Amino acid sequence: MQISNMQKEINEIPEALERLIEKSETHIIEAAAEINALNPHLVTTVARGSSDHAGLYLKYAIECFAGIPVASLGPSVTSIYKKQLSLQQSVNIAISQSGQSPDIVETARMAKKGGALNIAITNDVSSPLARECRHVFNINAGVEKSVAATKTFVTSIFAGLLLLAHWKQDDKLLQNLKELPHLANQALECNWSPLVEHCEKLSSLYVLGRGPAMAIALEAALKFKETCQIHAEAFSSAEVMHGPKSIIGNDFTVLALTARDASEQSIIQVANQLSTQGAKIYATTDQQIKAEKLPFVASGYPLTDPLLLIISYYKFVENLARVKGLNPDSPPNLKKVTETL
Amino acid sequence: MQISNMQKEINEIPEALERLIEKSETHIIEAAAEINALNPHLVTTVARGSSDHAGLYLKYAIECFAGIPVASLGPSVTSIYKKQLSLQQSVNIAISQSGQSPDIVETARMAKKGGALNIAITNDVSSPLARECRHVFNINAGVEKSVAATKTFVTSIFAGLLLLAHWKQDDKLLQNLKELPHLANQALECNWSPLVEHCEKLSSLYVLGRGPAMAIALEAALKFKETCQIHAEAFSSAEVMHGPKSIIGNDFTVLALTARDASEQSIIQVANQLSTQGAKIYATTDQQIKAEKLPFVASGYPLTDPLLLIISYYKFVENLARVKGLNPDSPPNLKKVTETL
Repeated sequence: MQISNMQKEINEIPEALERLIEKSETHIIEAAAEINALNPHLVTTVARGSSDHAGLYLKYAIECFAGIPVASLGPSVTSIYKKQLSLQQSVNIAISQSGQSPDIVETARMAKKGGALNIAITNDVSSPLARECRHVFNINAGVEKSVAATKTFVTSIFAGLLLLAHWKQDDKLLQNLKELPHLANQALECNWSPLVEHCEKLSSLYVLGRGPAMAIALEAALKFKETCQIHAEAFSSAEVMHGPKSIIGNDFTVLALTARDASEQSIIQVANQLSTQGAKIYATTDQQIKAEKLPFVASGYPLTDPLLLIISYYKFVENLARVKGLNPDSPPNLKKVTETL
Repeated sequence: MQISNMQKEINEIPEALERLIEKSETHIIEAAAEINALNPHLVTTVARGSSDHAGLYLKYAIECFAGIPVASLGPSVTSIYKKQLSLQQSVNIAISQSGQSPDIVETARMAKKGGALNIAITNDVSSPLARECRHVFNINAGVEKSVAATKTFVTSIFAGLLLLAHWKQDDKLLQNLKELPHLANQALECNWSPLVEHCEKLSSLYVLGRGPAMAIALEAALKFKETCQIHAEAFSSAEVMHGPKSIIGNDFTVLALTARDASEQSIIQVANQLSTQGAKIYATTDQQIKAEKLPFVASGYPLTDPLLLIISYYKFVENLARVKGLNPDSPPNLKKVTETL
């Protein structure tokens, strides 16, 4: 059987992470020094699709690690409503592998005009987005042919975490990040085939996360839709209790992406409640839980642990797409670069 | 047939809005003066479920109207990860009809400690949340018995918009807000029964919005789940193009909540594209569109127009629940006050 581009690109994640450290760390260190000098009271992010999930991961990481609030900028405020925000003494992080979508480029321009220090996390350093930004972090992921982003998602988050480690000059985080390429290789080996069999006939499910793992849950839900035509929706394990759990009846499937951080017990508690309600739960934990357990690789550091989960998930979802007879490289109705206003 | 509490409470929306103006405007004016004196560089919101959708509506409104970035605070940063954010010279708006959920109360306490001017928008001025906040806006909605929030959602947004009008001292917005109770009465008369028939057998659909109408789309999607056991998911009309549209095949239903603001044409354009892809579209517009048109009441002011849509929607969804043989007042697996950590 021919290997798909998506599978090839998932397998490239460890080497892409290595390359990012090798080729982009120096630039990231320069930006971190400038952020330290600025002493920002706000960070903003702007992105769409998978890149926006990367932005949410960085929101939790920056808030928890740097104690600075992070606002996600809705591109429409700039591109549709034509408004200017006041963004003095702030850092704006624009994330886009292609750097092409006009709404993201316009919002970065607006942020600069508003006084923000602009950073682009992109796979194309000559893109329109890169030209708007003072610092451009090349994620160095190599060409991504598959419509569904995989290696660019992981490397975008990785670039942001590397920035955070240098900004806060935290050796423990930095050291853990440098172990991630190796751990990413192990994450590729996790076998979720029982979940493949289970999902083959599903039309609808929920994916749960909390904190940074909520960003991973959103990304997983998007990939279920993009590559497997399954209507998956992501919720935080708290938010699902405020209404969405109403539709969880017998055998409704819930994928609980538990990570080894302070949120683990709270997700397990919610999963157990939903199980009592009839849900069929799959979970990435080795703690006691009323769920089918999926294998995972622990990163040894709370802030990076959720990132390894998406690597194992990507392998699973690509496999599920093929088992369903779909071509994971070219989902129906989509193209690689989406340009929105 | 006995009228449901939900229907009763939806019908009370116009009088609840009147009462809010009458009883809470003075207090809102005081808070607005204090915000003006503070000259904040950031507004944060904290809420869950429907109240969080109200927070998103206010994010768009404040960013577009006051030019100040708005960050949604994830309660887990405080309640799970135990972190303190630096929030000097900012305003935090906590929204909760009950004012009870521990994670929201804790986050408001954290915001105060971080230097934020705390405002509570609540239906219970003696709640734990109210006690943490310097300003407490009583939405004066009266008791809400139905598990599904309706009048408290509309009044929470209304209180926030009233604050914005006084803060920016904008007579046009203020005047429009004072016309809203009357317009809300008209919105109750919009008949969406063709959509009731269409949705009776649906298991899954998308709801689209953009800008403040995106918050309305999220609220509509939640109510589809809560009261009708239908898996509806909300997207901005830009975000849906970045992946989620992949699952839209023949006869997949899309409810496009178009409002009369700068985003209207962009939603229509996306709806037309999705229609070509096979989607069955329902839309709240009188512009040319490849969709079944649903009646709506125009507010005459862009920032308030989306708010009237949810009133017509609420009437529809309560009706749909009953047609499906469900009790809209007590959705399966839910209770009125959800306490999460």
